[in-house]
Amino acid sequence: MASVPTGDASLARLLDPASIAIVGASDNPDKIGGRPIHYMRRHGYAGTLYPINPQRAEVQGERAWPSLAALPAAPDLAIVAVAGEQAVRAVDDCAALGVAAAIVISAGFSETGEAGRALQEAMTARARAAGMRIVGPNSQGLANFGNGAIASFSTMFLEVAPGDGPVAVISQSGGMCAMVYGLLRQRGIGVRHVHATGNEADVSVAELACATLRDPEVGCVLLYLESLREAGPLAEAAALARARGVPLIVVKSGRSEAGARAAASHTGALANEDRAVDAFFEHHGILRARDPQELVRYAELALRSPLPQGPRVVVVSNSGASCVLASDAAAERGLEIAPLADATQQALAERLPGYATTINPVDITAALLSNNGLFGQVLPVIGADPAADMFLLDIPVAGRGYDVDSFATDAAGFARAASRPVVVVAWQDNVAATFRARGLPVYADEIQAMDALSALLRLRRLRERGRMASPPASQGIGTAEPAPNDAAGFLSEADSLALLAGNGLAVIEHAVCRTADEAIAAWRRIGAPVALKACSAKLPHKSEHGLVALGLDDEAALRAAFSHQAQTLGKLNVRDGAWLVARMQRGLHECALGARVDSVLGPVVMIGSGGKYVEALRDVAVLMPPFDAAQVVEKLRDLRIGALLQGVRGDPPADVAALAQQAVALGNYALAAGPRLASVDINPVMVGAVGQGAVAVDALVELHAASQPAARMTA
Amino acid sequence: MASVPTGDASLARLLDPASIAIVGASDNPDKIGGRPIHYMRRHGYAGTLYPINPQRAEVQGERAWPSLAALPAAPDLAIVAVAGEQAVRAVDDCAALGVAAAIVISAGFSETGEAGRALQEAMTARARAAGMRIVGPNSQGLANFGNGAIASFSTMFLEVAPGDGPVAVISQSGGMCAMVYGLLRQRGIGVRHVHATGNEADVSVAELACATLRDPEVGCVLLYLESLREAGPLAEAAALARARGVPLIVVKSGRSEAGARAAASHTGALANEDRAVDAFFEHHGILRARDPQELVRYAELALRSPLPQGPRVVVVSNSGASCVLASDAAAERGLEIAPLADATQQALAERLPGYATTINPVDITAALLSNNGLFGQVLPVIGADPAADMFLLDIPVAGRGYDVDSFATDAAGFARAASRPVVVVAWQDNVAATFRARGLPVYADEIQAMDALSALLRLRRLRERGRMASPPASQGIGTAEPAPNDAAGFLSEADSLALLAGNGLAVIEHAVCRTADEAIAAWRRIGAPVALKACSAKLPHKSEHGLVALGLDDEAALRAAFSHQAQTLGKLNVRDGAWLVARMQRGLHECALGARVDSVLGPVVMIGSGGKYVEALRDVAVLMPPFDAAQVVEKLRDLRIGALLQGVRGDPPADVAALAQQAVALGNYALAAGPRLASVDINPVMVGAVGQGAVAVDALVELHAASQPAARMTA
Repeated sequence: MASVPTGDASLARLLDPASIAIVGASDNPDKIGGRPIHYMRRHGYAGTLYPINPQRAEVQGERAWPSLAALPAAPDLAIVAVAGEQAVRAVDDCAALGVAAAIVISAGFSETGEAGRALQEAMTARARAAGMRIVGPNSQGLANFGNGAIASFSTMFLEVAPGDGPVAVISQSGGMCAMVYGLLRQRGIGVRHVHATGNEADVSVAELACATLRDPEVGCVLLYLESLREAGPLAEAAALARARGVPLIVVKSGRSEAGARAAASHTGALANEDRAVDAFFEHHGILRARDPQELVRYAELALRSPLPQGPRVVVVSNSGASCVLASDAAAERGLEIAPLADATQQALAERLPGYATTINPVDITAALLSNNGLFGQVLPVIGADPAADMFLLDIPVAGRGYDVDSFATDAAGFARAASRPVVVVAWQDNVAATFRARGLPVYADEIQAMDALSALLRLRRLRERGRMASPPASQGIGTAEPAPNDAAGFLSEADSLALLAGNGLAVIEHAVCRTADEAIAAWRRIGAPVALKACSAKLPHKSEHGLVALGLDDEAALRAAFSHQAQTLGKLNVRDGAWLVARMQRGLHECALGARVDSVLGPVVMIGSGGKYVEALRDVAVLMPPFDAAQVVEKLRDLRIGALLQGVRGDPPADVAALAQQAVALGNYALAAGPRLASVDINPVMVGAVGQGAVAVDALVELHAASQPAARMTA
Repeated sequence: MASVPTGDASLARLLDPASIAIVGASDNPDKIGGRPIHYMRRHGYAGTLYPINPQRAEVQGERAWPSLAALPAAPDLAIVAVAGEQAVRAVDDCAALGVAAAIVISAGFSETGEAGRALQEAMTARARAAGMRIVGPNSQGLANFGNGAIASFSTMFLEVAPGDGPVAVISQSGGMCAMVYGLLRQRGIGVRHVHATGNEADVSVAELACATLRDPEVGCVLLYLESLREAGPLAEAAALARARGVPLIVVKSGRSEAGARAAASHTGALANEDRAVDAFFEHHGILRARDPQELVRYAELALRSPLPQGPRVVVVSNSGASCVLASDAAAERGLEIAPLADATQQALAERLPGYATTINPVDITAALLSNNGLFGQVLPVIGADPAADMFLLDIPVAGRGYDVDSFATDAAGFARAASRPVVVVAWQDNVAATFRARGLPVYADEIQAMDALSALLRLRRLRERGRMASPPASQGIGTAEPAPNDAAGFLSEADSLALLAGNGLAVIEHAVCRTADEAIAAWRRIGAPVALKACSAKLPHKSEHGLVALGLDDEAALRAAFSHQAQTLGKLNVRDGAWLVARMQRGLHECALGARVDSVLGPVVMIGSGGKYVEALRDVAVLMPPFDAAQVVEKLRDLRIGALLQGVRGDPPADVAALAQQAVALGNYALAAGPRLASVDINPVMVGAVGQGAVAVDALVELHAASQPAARMTA
């Protein structure tokens, strides 16, 4: 993978080359070596084409050259479309000639096995040493419709008519690139960049995302990924996108175990823990789509619409049934059917027949058939309502007698004036086409439309979070070393608690003892019932060995428990055993906090329901640090424990602020600890009523040895 | 609503009339009174048409009649397409003439308010008294493409070309009827029946479903409902569908609160509790779709495919990315990517290039482009694999160089031979059309395809359940009266426990006492720690008043608790107070059981996580009785408590069989009690380890007074 900065000039020349050599140029525009030439001539590529073909003087009307060496100058870009060893030789020749970048279309490299992988790595190393970038091998190629540099053999450019526009599509898989391109063009959306990176010996999807984001005409970047192998370039692309206000929308497939298996067999993709991927995307303001079709639906709206101020939708339809379907779809996606003001309802009543509804959803009814003007009359009325954040115009049924053209014109004018998102639902293809021709985003059903509106609201919230996000933290929160230099493996509970306490977490009042007398002294000092726990780094799961005694509040009981645990330690042959005497912490709720450091994505923090059944309950949210307490509180809302923390069945509200602060401290610690940290498990965090705090009662930290090679961290 | 049996002859004549009068017949085929005549002439209706129009001798080439009275014979069916009072008069005239059924297209009745409702009810009552059935008013009409009786003014029949076939679409909303019809025809699916019932003054959607199910050519019935007003006819339709093996697929919208509000304003729909609707559908073997688009996608597969034997899918694609997307989509819907046998993998390896995968999903790769025969060669190989329950053929990318025609021919031959479900995913419209033309079900993306396959598997399981379902029960399970005749409102805990115990539920060992001495005697008899609970029918929520003392195990503590509770009862002015002394029940898990009797759908039983936070946790499944223990165990699997009951973190497995038996007994009780029962809440049901049983520890039963008018019950 590349370690070269992504903003380098070679990538800019890759997308805007002044000259292009085609090694293996064919006179046949249907052959792989012929298609790029055909496309570039068709799309008016203004640079110089150098077809390389020793057999011909001319290729598709362009002067051909017998070899790379024969060229009058080194081209910016070379397309390598010859097979096997010829391809390797061509890449070497390009590097020797001083070509800035080569697109290796040829297959037969890492995708075929170990020998191919070795061939690919050696070829790439030679190219990089000579300062040349490589796209591919096994790449469908790159296409820039802004300048006609279509260095790609995708057949999709023959299936749907190209049209330049604001979208960039980038994917490792050439098929997926082409398919997303096709879906976009079917919707009439202009696409400038269509790039497939193939085996990614060098240039990656994320690097090309950065490069396209430097094209000022690009207004939306869509990626298809099966694996996150490096976090840095994608984080950089996300930062560029945020800075420019350009939506970055990504499909990361291989979400499930079965999907990850399929991805590994497709592109050798590493499995990423899917919730960590979600947290990474959220952290960097990347909108995730579940599949390429959704990607395209989101893009259509993000391109054609301002971001919404809030979740309240006004629905207008000529079908009462569609009003019901739209309401269900909104509710199921956390959107609200906006309550209309009295003035709005009165104005609607003046315009609509008596049996039509004046509440939201506004059902114009089939009265639209006898008075086609109703649609246009209703729009400014709902547009004036102060509660309306977004609008859904739903015309499921139209045909003879309906003036769909005028509806579309009215809707387009309304959208311009509204300065808020306006989407159309049209079940019939011809109706959809009429609205789309006026520049409106159109969906085939209410669920797709509400999905897209809800994604747009998510995009707005991601942007706001990006603006509010604190700079990478650990500012004076931890005083202790993030990880003791000599420690590795599991720390004992005592060491784990000490490490966390030193890094700003509230931990249970406790003492570490070696003898029964010390334990009794500690109990007296605490002055309340205590737990006695034998602790050793060798026994991370002490309760399985019966080494935990709870609620001890007299000397005899403490001595008995101590002696029993000492015997057990002896049997287990544990010599470094010590005892933890800890206050029995009361609280309202048992929560759990954890941290993991993903070797690609960096640290993530888990928060959720705690207690014995933490794994079985799976009631957990994942955040990527740094984050603030408000973000934790928002995440807790989605959890079942979140409802309990608010106080139900007579419980007082719990100290969510203190719990959130614990999570923030853990996140900052995980960032500071970096790749030395393997994991933190805190269970339970006992949360009291408001003002009573949240306290880590039991903790287990696992560290990597200091000599452990540093894992790649997120930027 | 109708109380007439749905199989009556008038409904058969409604769908297959020998003669049809059109009141308000128009010579203009675009007018409401002209369209049915135009359609019937176009579709070769072979019966007699009687256009009624006093102004004309001929209408659209048919002899016209000046009035109903002038007709030579009473027609089977009359279409009333005149406005206001004329419509009422026409209906009265029809009734007088002995017409079997009238379709009242005219609007201006219950949908306009109270006066309209009164008009409608009076008109319907007169018609019914004369033995005439009414469809509508405010109905788009009925259409039977099997005999050309198109008594409908839907414009959709002009937008898409009609084609007779096995599907019946029935909806109250005319718009939805037309739209579903349009979606079906776009997919090339033949549709025979398209019926809209409008205001449903008489004939309902469910009755027409029964009537169409008596048409032997009908192979799939699709309904759109916004409310279930009567359970009986729909249950009857479901029974007919099951008996004939015809899929009955239903959209019930108004799932959310917002949706139910919109439905109420659209058709005056009653809100049904959505989980009760789910339980009702499941009980009757009705497949539910979330929206009309999904309805149509399910119909396409159900019509063209046998039911699957299991959840294992084999995926074949020319795109590795589609393989990943399909795997994700399968996993998220509970389907499995079938592991291929060694022999299958070997056979694939012999046919595919070395870099293609021979595991499932089978990625043929772009090698398909250079060898179009690969697709046809792979199919019989995967077809022979013993693990394959279903097949997904995924051709997302095709264009010049791909012989899609031969793929489609191969796929169709494979589907015929496979006798298992085969679906196609095609992202491109022209590719989809090619496969669809060969009779294969085709979906636009992997998610839709896996959704449909998963629905088909659900349909199979619904069928099996239907076959296994025990006859409506209460056979000797309860010995006590289902509800004491003089009781109403909340029963005391003691009475509640007695009622449930008398009906076969295991309840906590307890005694009812009036004095402290009696309580102490009871405690001694139980011989273990007890709970003391003051109980009165006036205090259904006794713990809120501090009237529950737990874990009492000595005389002094019992006396103190008794005296404290007696004081509290005094303060609350409760004179009928008694005390429950109950064994403190140990167990592994607190579950909850409940029953409600829905006035439309009948009784439903809830089972799930119990304890204090039962409402907040919302971890509950709903079943409609009668059901057996196996069905309960299956439902528990979907719950979070289900994972805990299996035994995690060192817990032994819980006595799920005993818990399930408690649920079965409660269901049988709820059925036997009928409309007298309002609700049962049992929380907790304490569940022990296997063999230790499940015991109702606290219970609250609410009854309606015996004089309460019986609510309509499900058949």
